[in-house]
Amino acid sequence: MTKISIVGLGLMGTALAETLIKAGHEVTVWNRTDRKAEPLVALGATRAADVAEAVRPGSLVIVCVLDYATVHDVLRQASLEGTTVVNLTSGRPAEARRTAEWVRERGGEYLDGGVMAVPQMIGGPGALILYSGSQEVFDRHRAELGALAEARYVGADAGLAPLLDMAMLTGMYGQIAGATQAMALVRSAGLPVSDFTTTLLLPWLRAMGELLPGWAAEIDDRRWETDMSNLGVNDAVLEGIAVAMREQGVETNLLTPLQQIVAKRIADGHAGHGLQSLIEEVHPDLHRS
Amino acid sequence: MTKISIVGLGLMGTALAETLIKAGHEVTVWNRTDRKAEPLVALGATRAADVAEAVRPGSLVIVCVLDYATVHDVLRQASLEGTTVVNLTSGRPAEARRTAEWVRERGGEYLDGGVMAVPQMIGGPGALILYSGSQEVFDRHRAELGALAEARYVGADAGLAPLLDMAMLTGMYGQIAGATQAMALVRSAGLPVSDFTTTLLLPWLRAMGELLPGWAAEIDDRRWETDMSNLGVNDAVLEGIAVAMREQGVETNLLTPLQQIVAKRIADGHAGHGLQSLIEEVHPDLHRS
Ligand SMILES: NC(=O)c1ccc[n+]([C@@H]2O[C@H](COP(=O)([O-])OP(=O)(O)OC[C@H]3O[C@@H](n4cnc5c(N)ncnc54)[C@H](OP(=O)(O)O)[C@@H]3O)[C@@H](O)[C@H]2O)c1
Ligand SMILES: NC(=O)c1ccc[n+]([C@@H]2O[C@H](COP(=O)([O-])OP(=O)(O)OC[C@H]3O[C@@H](n4cnc5c(N)ncnc54)[C@H](OP(=O)(O)O)[C@@H]3O)[C@@H](O)[C@H]2O)c1
Repeated sequence: MTKISIVGLGLMGTALAETLIKAGHEVTVWNRTDRKAEPLVALGATRAADVAEAVRPGSLVIVCVLDYATVHDVLRQASLEGTTVVNLTSGRPAEARRTAEWVRERGGEYLDGGVMAVPQMIGGPGALILYSGSQEVFDRHRAELGALAEARYVGADAGLAPLLDMAMLTGMYGQIAGATQAMALVRSAGLPVSDFTTTLLLPWLRAMGELLPGWAAEIDDRRWETDMSNLGVNDAVLEGIAVAMREQGVETNLLTPLQQIVAKRIADGHAGHGLQSLIEEVHPDLHRS
Repeated sequence: MTKISIVGLGLMGTALAETLIKAGHEVTVWNRTDRKAEPLVALGATRAADVAEAVRPGSLVIVCVLDYATVHDVLRQASLEGTTVVNLTSGRPAEARRTAEWVRERGGEYLDGGVMAVPQMIGGPGALILYSGSQEVFDRHRAELGALAEARYVGADAGLAPLLDMAMLTGMYGQIAGATQAMALVRSAGLPVSDFTTTLLLPWLRAMGELLPGWAAEIDDRRWETDMSNLGVNDAVLEGIAVAMREQGVETNLLTPLQQIVAKRIADGHAGHGLQSLIEEVHPDLHRS
């Protein structure tokens, strides 16, 4: 089996290491805070005394630390000559491109990855990792990468996986912000949130999520009309929700920016358009009119 | 079959009327803008010349207009003595309670409803309407209401259906805000959004949605620890997304409030807590500590 080094043993790095050990690979681990290596050593991993011991010529190095600045801080402690770096730290497209160049200048190969899963999902169904950068690295290590999650290669530009990763995370944060406010409103009425979330909120979010591909097609075609629900009605509903939240002592600040965008579109004469048209406020399409 | 009057023929009222006509009911319709009744008359509906003609003793009156102020404006034009009013207009819990009282004072029975569906879903699978108020009305008209959507009675307090409705809508608006930003980020890279939305965003939102019931249980138990992803890491990711958006010319204002709430929790010493703990900023639980 392949010799793999895992650099960074936070919640995610630990899950990555565990999965690869269980898949039978020879795994070397390093973490700034040493004791986090212990449970992995108990599972059969080798502990590296320093970064240079984990990052050697010929090794496949999977890095998963807080951010790209940390990636550079850590990898600077080793020679990258002859190494293959797969960076699963979350970051920006521009950082990924810079890091790809930085690693190549030091004689390493580089693949960037965006982990679309929480640690508990690694190695199980539903986990996805997007990769961009060196296709050669991706093809050569398909099996190891495939042990972690469904591995999807999205392009040679190292910035592409982080871009799609960030876009998906943005979507998730919106879902989380909305769900948090929904639960807060229910809690403000003195009700528990578990039953509400399981039997009402989640099925509803699933049903509404099914509308998104249709909206996306309309966005690609720049079709802003709707036969579903227009900005005028949504404005009234949003205002009602905001007032109700204030009446119940719930913070409205997560909802306010959406309300402002809807109000602006209406002021600009678009009350009859659908919610898909809001993208024009978030990223105006300047190339067409 | 029951004689049903539909007051308000916007997108939703029209869908409600169509479904009831197709289910074989005798349907009378009224709308401020008269011509919207025409397609329904062609399907077999009777057009009322004024509100009083639609709202008569013994009739089941389904009202679906812009907001509760409009409900009052419209229903004021008829006697409510001996009528049954089912109000499917979106509004606040306090408005629903006031309207219930107002209708009862005028000799009518009142049931409030929250429509959890877009018009296209009415009469089909997946549509849900929450009802609160008179259980007698609900039981008596179960069949007619069941023709519109799955009908779920949630309690005698007329404000309960609107409260749960608003909570669910808030969740949906968060999902929409997040998806809009996600698509904007993808569009800013010159990519179409359809493929991204269908193959990446939606499956991801579905997978992340599955985490919500677990978070809800933690919220009910006031458990703020996490083995999934802590606020410290999320803060770094959110900052990365915000910077990337600015680099790509995408507005960050839909994301900013969440970022601020995360930053505040961290400043208060909770960097190790999970995202479920954010509810404490949105609706602090003052009864326990
Ligand atoms: N958790 C998730 O659900 C998830 C999902 C997708 C992507 N990610 C991404 O995966 C990466 C790691 O996340 P995580 O959840 O594992 O975070 P975490 O549990 O907080 O771990 C952070 C890791 O970074 C290391 N680190 C931080 N600052 C460092 C420094 N100055 N020098 C050396 N090491 C440093 C930490 O070392 P110490 O142990 O010494 O502090 C630890 O190994 C992040 O980029 C995150 O966005 C996480
Ligand atoms: N569409 C959805 O997806 C959806 C989903 C759930 C709940 N709802 C709720 O259903 C209700 C109606 O929504 P909709 O989508 O059908 O809206 P819509 O298409 O904009 O229709 C609004 C209706 O209200 C009437 N109206 C507005 N102001 C009036 C006034 N001053 N006097 C008399 N009638 C007036 C309109 O009459 P005119 O035709 O004369 O303008 C029309 O019948 C709203 O409370 C909405 O929140 C809608």
